[in-house]
Parts: sequence; C-alpha cells; structure tokens
Amino acid sequence: MTNTADQTRTPAPDPRWAHAQQRPSGMPIHKYEPFHAQLDVSLPDRTWPDKRITKAPRWCAVDLRDGNQALIEPMNAERKLAMFRLLVDMGYKEIEVGFPSASQTDYDFVRLLIEQDLIPDDVIIQVLTQSREHLIARTYEALRGAKQAIVHLYNSTSVLQREVVFRTNEDGIVDIALEGAKLCRKFEETIPETRIYYEYSPESYTGTELEFAARICNEVLEVFEPTAERPVIVNLPATVEMATPNVYADSIEWMNRHLDHREHVILSLHPHNDRGTAVAAAELGYQAGADRIEGCLFGNGERTGNVDLVTLGMNLFSQGIDPEIDFSQMDRIRRTVEQCNQLPVGERHPWAGDLVFTAFSGSHQDAIKKGLEAMAKRADAQGVTVEDIVWGVPYLPIDPKDVGRSYEAVIRVNSQSGKGGISYLLKSERNLDLPRRLQIEFSRAVQEHTDAQGIEVNAEDIWRIFSDEYLPAEPDSGLEPWGRLRLVSTRASSSEDGPDTLEVELEDAGQVRTVTGTGNGPVDAFLDVLRQVGHDVLVLDYAEHALSAGSDAAAAAYVECSVGDDVLWGVGIDPSITTASLKAIISAVNRYERGQVEGRAADPATVGR
Amino acid sequence: MTNTADQTRTPAPDPRWAHAQQRPSGMPIHKYEPFHAQLDVSLPDRTWPDKRITKAPRWCAVDLRDGNQALIEPMNAERKLAMFRLLVDMGYKEIEVGFPSASQTDYDFVRLLIEQDLIPDDVIIQVLTQSREHLIARTYEALRGAKQAIVHLYNSTSVLQREVVFRTNEDGIVDIALEGAKLCRKFEETIPETRIYYEYSPESYTGTELEFAARICNEVLEVFEPTAERPVIVNLPATVEMATPNVYADSIEWMNRHLDHREHVILSLHPHNDRGTAVAAAELGYQAGADRIEGCLFGNGERTGNVDLVTLGMNLFSQGIDPEIDFSQMDRIRRTVEQCNQLPVGERHPWAGDLVFTAFSGSHQDAIKKGLEAMAKRADAQGVTVEDIVWGVPYLPIDPKDVGRSYEAVIRVNSQSGKGGISYLLKSERNLDLPRRLQIEFSRAVQEHTDAQGIEVNAEDIWRIFSDEYLPAEPDSGLEPWGRLRLVSTRASSSEDGPDTLEVELEDAGQVRTVTGTGNGPVDAFLDVLRQVGHDVLVLDYAEHALSAGSDAAAAAYVECSVGDDVLWGVGIDPSITTASLKAIISAVNRYERGQVEGRAADPATVGR
Repeated sequence: MTNTADQTRTPAPDPRWAHAQQRPSGMPIHKYEPFHAQLDVSLPDRTWPDKRITKAPRWCAVDLRDGNQALIEPMNAERKLAMFRLLVDMGYKEIEVGFPSASQTDYDFVRLLIEQDLIPDDVIIQVLTQSREHLIARTYEALRGAKQAIVHLYNSTSVLQREVVFRTNEDGIVDIALEGAKLCRKFEETIPETRIYYEYSPESYTGTELEFAARICNEVLEVFEPTAERPVIVNLPATVEMATPNVYADSIEWMNRHLDHREHVILSLHPHNDRGTAVAAAELGYQAGADRIEGCLFGNGERTGNVDLVTLGMNLFSQGIDPEIDFSQMDRIRRTVEQCNQLPVGERHPWAGDLVFTAFSGSHQDAIKKGLEAMAKRADAQGVTVEDIVWGVPYLPIDPKDVGRSYEAVIRVNSQSGKGGISYLLKSERNLDLPRRLQIEFSRAVQEHTDAQGIEVNAEDIWRIFSDEYLPAEPDSGLEPWGRLRLVSTRASSSEDGPDTLEVELEDAGQVRTVTGTGNGPVDAFLDVLRQVGHDVLVLDYAEHALSAGSDAAAAAYVECSVGDDVLWGVGIDPSITTASLKAIISAVNRYERGQVEGRAADPATVGR
Repeated sequence: MTNTADQTRTPAPDPRWAHAQQRPSGMPIHKYEPFHAQLDVSLPDRTWPDKRITKAPRWCAVDLRDGNQALIEPMNAERKLAMFRLLVDMGYKEIEVGFPSASQTDYDFVRLLIEQDLIPDDVIIQVLTQSREHLIARTYEALRGAKQAIVHLYNSTSVLQREVVFRTNEDGIVDIALEGAKLCRKFEETIPETRIYYEYSPESYTGTELEFAARICNEVLEVFEPTAERPVIVNLPATVEMATPNVYADSIEWMNRHLDHREHVILSLHPHNDRGTAVAAAELGYQAGADRIEGCLFGNGERTGNVDLVTLGMNLFSQGIDPEIDFSQMDRIRRTVEQCNQLPVGERHPWAGDLVFTAFSGSHQDAIKKGLEAMAKRADAQGVTVEDIVWGVPYLPIDPKDVGRSYEAVIRVNSQSGKGGISYLLKSERNLDLPRRLQIEFSRAVQEHTDAQGIEVNAEDIWRIFSDEYLPAEPDSGLEPWGRLRLVSTRASSSEDGPDTLEVELEDAGQVRTVTGTGNGPVDAFLDVLRQVGHDVLVLDYAEHALSAGSDAAAAAYVECSVGDDVLWGVGIDPSITTASLKAIISAVNRYERGQVEGRAADPATVGR
C-alpha cells in the first residue's frame, strides 16, 4: 500500500491542512463512472424529504427465496419450515416461499405447505418465476390447491443487462415481460380455485432508465388489469444498489407519479445493500410513496443482502409506530434465523446484536444509570410504573426489555452478563472456548446466581460459578467439593484392529473400584465402564481444545451427554486430552446426580447450591 | 408471540388486502415518541438532495478511541500499534488515538507514539477530553513532544442529558463548554512546540435543539478563534441515531448556514448506526455541506458502531471518486482489524465480507459470465486491456480484483474456492470444522491444485485434495498412499499422580517398532516417542470435535506442529479421540518429511504431488 507513488496526481493542497494532506490512493478510479453519468434520475420538485413515516408498510419477507438462494448451504425442508413458521409467528402476511420452477427443493416445499395445510388463511404465499412458458406452467402446478398466492414475474430491464445478457432493445425486453404476463393469465385458469395476485419486477431497476421502467410496468399492468379487489404489485428492486439513497427515493417518487392505475397498484421496494444504505433507501423510498417493502430478517440475501426487515421494523417501533410485526422475543428470532441461514448475526447488528445495548464507557454507564433513576422518579411522581411513561434514557434508543433483553447487559462493564459476554470473559480470561449450547446452559447458571445474590458478577465471579458448576473443587478455592464420581487412573490400549480397552480406577461415592470397558476409543470404552457401575450415558456432542500453545499445556474438553432423562454438559480440564474428556463425562454425570438429589433435574442448568 | 390478542386495536382494514391484513404487534409503542415530536428539524428549502459527491471528505479514523472503548476486550499496546500502522498505511491523516486523561493505557499509548517517533510528519493525532481542568491538564501532558495534534473537547448538550445527567439549563451547559475551551487555550501554552488544533463536539447533538447547538458551537468558536492557518473542527455527532438520515442531513445543512467563521470551520460528521443508516447519514450530511467524517473501519464503535469508513470510502471508489484511502488489500485490512478488535467482519459486510462478490444463483452467474465476456470483447475491439475500460458487469458493482479478490469466489457455484467457501464445504459435506489457520493453509493447497489443473473444484474434489494432503490414503480411494510413519497400536496408562505412559507400535518406513514414552497425557507422551525415533515435534495448537452425534462416531483432530524449521498442520480422524490426535501429529510429521524430500519445505501448504 503506497500513496506517495504518483506525485503528479496530487491535487492542489487545501491550505487549511497543507501539512497533512490526504493523497491519491492509487486505486483504479478510471474504471468507474458516477451513477449520474450512467442514468439521469433527478426530481427537483421532490416532496419525500418533507414526508414522515406514520404507519408500517405492507411487508413481504423473501427469506425463503432471495435469502435462501444466497446461502452457502441453502435450507433443507426442515430449516425452510422453521423459517416459515417464524415469519408467520412474527406477523408477516406475505411470504415469498420459493422459485418453484427453478428448484425441485423449492417446488417440493411449496407442495408441502399446501398439501399439509400449513399456510394460515390470512397469509399469502408468493412464488417467483421468470418469463418463460415452461417455468410459468410449472409455477402454477406448484400452486394447485392453495387458497391464494402471489405470482411474482420478473425480467431484467437494465441498460447493462439489455446489452450484455439479452442483446436486445427496449421493445424486445417489453415483449419478454408481456409474453410472461399473458402466459400467467392463461395458466391462472388452470387453477381457478386459487385466488391469484400478481407482482411484476423490472429486475435491475436501479440500472434502468426511469422512462423505460415506467413503460414496461405500465404495459404489464394492462395485462394484469389491477382492480380494487385484485391490486397488482409493482416491485422496484435495487437489484444492485448503485447510488446514494436519496437518488433511489427520487426514482420512487418519479415512478409513483408515472404508474398507471396507481390507485390499484401496490408500489413495492426491494433494496439490496451493496452500498450499506439499503435501510435508508427503503425508508426514503417509503417516504417517496411506496406501499410495501420486501426484505429478509437480519438482511440475508444475495451478496451484501436484502434490506433488513428487523431493522426497518424496529426503527418504526422506536418512533412509536407499530411495526405490525412482533419483535419482543428478539433472541429467539435471531437464534432461529441463525440456525436456518447458518450465518451469524453480528455483534453490532442494529436492535439485535450482542453489543447493541451495552455501554462500556464509564460516562455512558453513568448517564444510563441517571436516566433510569429519573424515569423511576418520574413514574413515581405520576403514580404509574415506568412501563407507562415515555422512554428517555441516554445512549439507549429503546428499552432493551421491549425486545426481551435485560438491563444486565447494559449497565455492566464489559458485558459480564449475557451469553455473549460470559463466553467472551471465559475466553479472554481463561482461554475457554465454550460450545454454543454450553454457553446457553451456563448463562442460565450465571443468571440463577445473579438473581439469587442480587449482585453484579465480574470475570472472577464467573470463573468461580463455572468451576463450581462444572469442575471438581480445587483444594485452595474455598469451594465445597461435590460429586459422586472421581477418576483416579486409567490404562488404555488401542490397536488397528478390534476395539480399544480401558481400565479405569474410579472413586464412586468414596469407594475406589477398578473396572475395564471396551469400545471405539477411550470415550466409548469409558461409557462401557460407566454402564457397568450403573450410569447409562450417551455422548451427543463434544469439543476439545488446547488452553494455550505447547504440548504440555492443559486441554479443555466439553461433552454434551444424555444421562437419564436429561441432556447436560460436562467439562474436564487436564494435561491429557483423553483424561480431560473422561473428566468431562464425569462432570456431566455428577451434575445429573446432583440435580436428581436436589429434585431439580428438569432444567439442569438452573441447579444451584 | 401473538398478534391476535387485542382485536379492538386492529385498524380499519385496507380493502385491498382485507383477507390478509397485518395486525397490531402488541409491542409497547406507547413508550416512544416520534423524533419530530421531540425536536423540530425541518428545512423546506434544503439543497442537499440536488447535490452530488465529487471528492473525498477529510477522514478521521476514531478506531483507537470510539472503536476501542466499545470492545469487550479493549486493545493492548500491541494491538493499538497494529491498528495505528494500518490506518497510516491506508492513508488516514487524522487519527484519534485515545482519551489519555481517562485511561492510563491510552495515555501510555500516546506517549509511546510520541516518544518512539511513530507518527509520520503528515499525520495528525487527535485526543479526546472532557471539559474538566484536571483532565485537560493531563491531556496536554500526554501531548508533550508531538509535532502537531488535535485536541477534541466535548460536552453533552441534548435535552435529555441536560435534564437527567447534568440537571442544568442551556447556560450551564454553555459554561461547561466555554470553561473547557478556555482551559485548553491556557494549557496550550504549556507545550508551545506542539502545533495544536481544536475540535469541539456538542455530544448527543442529534438530541439537541438546532438553535442551541449553533449557539454553543459559535460561543466555543469565539474562544478557539479559527483562522485560515488554524481552522477549528466543529463535529456534530449522531451520538445516538434518532431519525431517518434525511433529517440528519437537514440538520447539517441548517448548521452549515448558522455556524460563524464558516470559512475557517471544518464541519465534521460523526454518525452512529443505531438505526442502521449511519452510512446514509454520513453521505447525505456530506452532501449537505460537511467537510469531514469521523468513523471506524468496518463500523466498530459503541453499540451498533460508528459509521463504517470502509463502506464510505469504497462507495466513493465505485463512483470513480478517489477515496484517498487505499483499499486494494481488503483482506489484509480486514484481518488486521479483526485481530485488533477481536470482532469478526460479517459475511455480507459491504465491499469486504466473504460473500459480497459471490453469486450463487444460476441466472446471476450466467449474467456475470456474459458481462465479463462482453468486457473482454470491448477491450479487444479498442486494442486495450479490460483494466483500461469502464467496468460493467451485472451483479458486480466493482471489479473484485480492485480490492484484491479473485473472480474465483464470484463465478463458482456455492463458493468452491476461497478459504470461506472451502471451509464451508468441508463443514457442510464432511462435518469437518477446520481451525482458522488450517483453513488458510489448506486453501493454499487447493489453490495450488486449481492453478495446476486449470479447472474448477467441487466439494468432492476438495475432499479428495484434503484427504490426499492430510489423511492416509483409503484402500478404495484411488489415491496413492504416502507417508513414512503409521500408527499400529497404543497402550496408555494414566493416574492422578505422576506422568502418563504410552506404549506405541509405530510403522516407520515399513518397519514396525515398539516405543514407550512418558508425558502429560498421551499427546505429550507421543511426542516423547517421536523424539526417540528422531522427530523433534512441538504441538502449538490443537482442536478436536465429534464428526456427528453419538459416542461411536469418529472424531477429527487438528494439530498445529512445529517440525524442524516448519510450522504445519496435521489432521487425524479416528473413532478414538486419543488416536485421532496421534494420527494428526503423524500427519504433520509425514507432510513435513514429504516437503523435505521434494525440497519445498519453505511453504508446506504448497507441497503438491
């Protein structure tokens, strides 16, 4: 990286900063044209900057189509169903469920939804199709038996795609769209029992001349014949985000003025996030006259993603506008989406990330504390609860409780509470890298502790709680030793052929016994040993890692076990990786035993002392 | 989650969608007021929507202050220095390096930069201070010996903070600012050899009445006395993002008109991302008349983060405007930032995420292919290279090569190339969860293969390359077996006291030998065995996990070893977790040996066959 190479390109210095002038980067800017040199979108008499959002738009969730197609591993039927159910539970009424003519998985999923009657009466599924006869035919086959559906027809209209992909002129592109629209009307008759609505997208709209976009939409509208009972959706995708969001808003206001049958048209936005301004584009476009927004939860979707429906909805909520979508269990929503998409939601993701309600700075924490106190005082003075008065706390745009977060994560330094913070502390202070499900289990144990003690916990407290919960008490720890089983010694043998054997000296309720087991490796052989002493244990998952560099460093093993009717984790730390694993299994069994004794086996994580 | 509870709150149905009406969410919207009910920001004669960005703003990187203070584990001196050097290398000329009066670490870091002469002559460091005498005194102590510096004074001005935190009126808040500004001027005299510039931030500006914001800034300006030679920065932070980005832009244009000494004032923006629109706010605010933008790489910072300087800079680049910052080695930038912040950059992060140049959809891939072909043809026709002509490829807003990415990740289905894609495939197809450094090592091996064969690789190819590189050949794999060492059998014994012993039958170049070693656990004992047969191996890191649920499932072990002068990974798969680890060490040793034989030990990952 050099920025001193080409002195001749240095612009005249700004006299105000002559001594610290920014330099040309050397990046190949000659390869790119500004948007306004490519397309003319300007609307000097725009009205959208004076408009305010006062109600939720019509939402359409495209997680199962645009989101799904952009996944490294697209969802299987099970993950699709989990996503569909989540979207329905949250309150989405329009859900694009797939591109059934392009993918057998999508086709099968649409059939599953219809045949198993999984679509609530007040939810409309939407399916995407290209403008080609066999694809359209297949699309209507997929929909047979549905009560209602939106058929979403698209073709690409941009200058660039016309030139390099379709190699045709505007008329040729219009013909593609009209042919598709007419075929839709024809195949519609094959499933008369299904109420069909239409959506048309001039795909790559942001790279299309506005006049042409309006022409093609209006010609398609003539075929779809919008009415009050059967409005038609015109969807204007920022397939690639190409300019600042005010330009998109100008274009939407222009289209809003130039679409025919406007009273029966639902003007829809579909922003992507290439420039990181999809949320803004959606909001300003909505101010500019749109009725409807398509997007994905947490902004999944092609490349940088579709616009994030969670951020859009929560932005409304924070202004006192009902998003008409329920975000009150944000962590559950997030976990389901992470499981479906196999992509994490970032720590700083608006309204949902692990860190977004956390204040690390002392002055922020102080202001938050004073803000909360002032609210309590104000509520007291009015004789109501803080839930009844207007929220006003510095650095917290909303009450974290409204999305199911506690104040713990907010007011504690470096996030000593919350699964994320606890795990970070164990990682940074103790080098322990807990598997995700163990994080969840352990955070409940911490919560139990903080609720009981009513105090804040620091890293040392967390380590103490962790040790007491999962590890045998160290002599100098001040913790009381507990647990029925303890490992004294092992002898293992293994060969290329036949099972491994493991001879174990085990202390069981104070008595040392020697038992030999066999199995695939020492873990399996150890489970055989445990069976012989009366414990039926299955290992469901495990992970192990070094605690620091070097072969003499200790290992940490985490084992998720099924013991009796419970599923619970055990942890073992030992210089030997084998012994660490066996200790982890013992930890799980001991925790189970304690739960049984204390009669709290149903939720092992909340077992306390 | 229910959205059917309170029918009385259902608004009148929209007749167009009466059968699928969105319902009230039940969320407590009564707790929030819209922004316009809190503050009046309106500018009907705004001009910014007609403005276009034509040059880069003055950048100020605040990663070492606002970014750092929001980290779970704030940077130590080493990570701070890595971040500082990265920022300097990229071309940033103003770098906020800390809050030296609030933190000893920050103070020490500023001293380190100055005393070790690490600040280039054309770079200005910036330090934050509150408006209190002992803090200001300490701030100037920290700066002693610097050639130049910006002292950044702030105090909070919002309606809310005045009420609940400072419990004073506007005059009281102005007094705090003026007192601080005067103290700055006084202490400035204590370090006459340092050229001091000033920045003033009315913190929580977005929650402040515009008239009051202008008043306090203008009064502070009278103290700081801006001139052409010594302009003063007025920084207007969206400490909390409270409204759509057009409202922030309106407010900036209003301030731009109402600041005194405007010709000697550098109007600066400092957006945060609570509503997910910080990039838009920065861009529209810049159109509205600002000169300068403060932010962090990849949007680190309090809660949802500061505005992302990478996205802002790359947005300019994609419009043919020189960002005056070098992003050509995006992956290096990203890795350094991830190391410094200990926070990942998301897969869909604009311009930098793993997936942002990847097209999974067949029609996108086809269009990209046609676009690249059309560019090649166009360049040919003009007798130039594609690097000389204007970029125009569907779904790719820029040429990924310009940020150091290859086309591989773009045009291959489900990302069969690139570390991320390779790792995902091994994870999804084979359940192998490679540690990060092994991912990097192995991706070079795949690259070697694809470069040599000139073909695309699929999941099966990747598994074959992986098996051949790290695992012993399976009898029916068609791969040629290689490797000097092979494990035949082991017998281990362990007790609570004293070292573990391990007896190993080892096939060494065809001869089976039995060797016994001792150590902390089987791995350490095995290294003792290897030492006895002439291999000095250190284990630097390892990780192990189950390949599926159940104790009879195989385990995968990954071990990073130092062998001879090399550092390289080995992989072992076995039903026994112990045996898997030992096999992984053998894998590393065998790979080392092969490298030695083939004379390519210097870069073990590129060892091919």
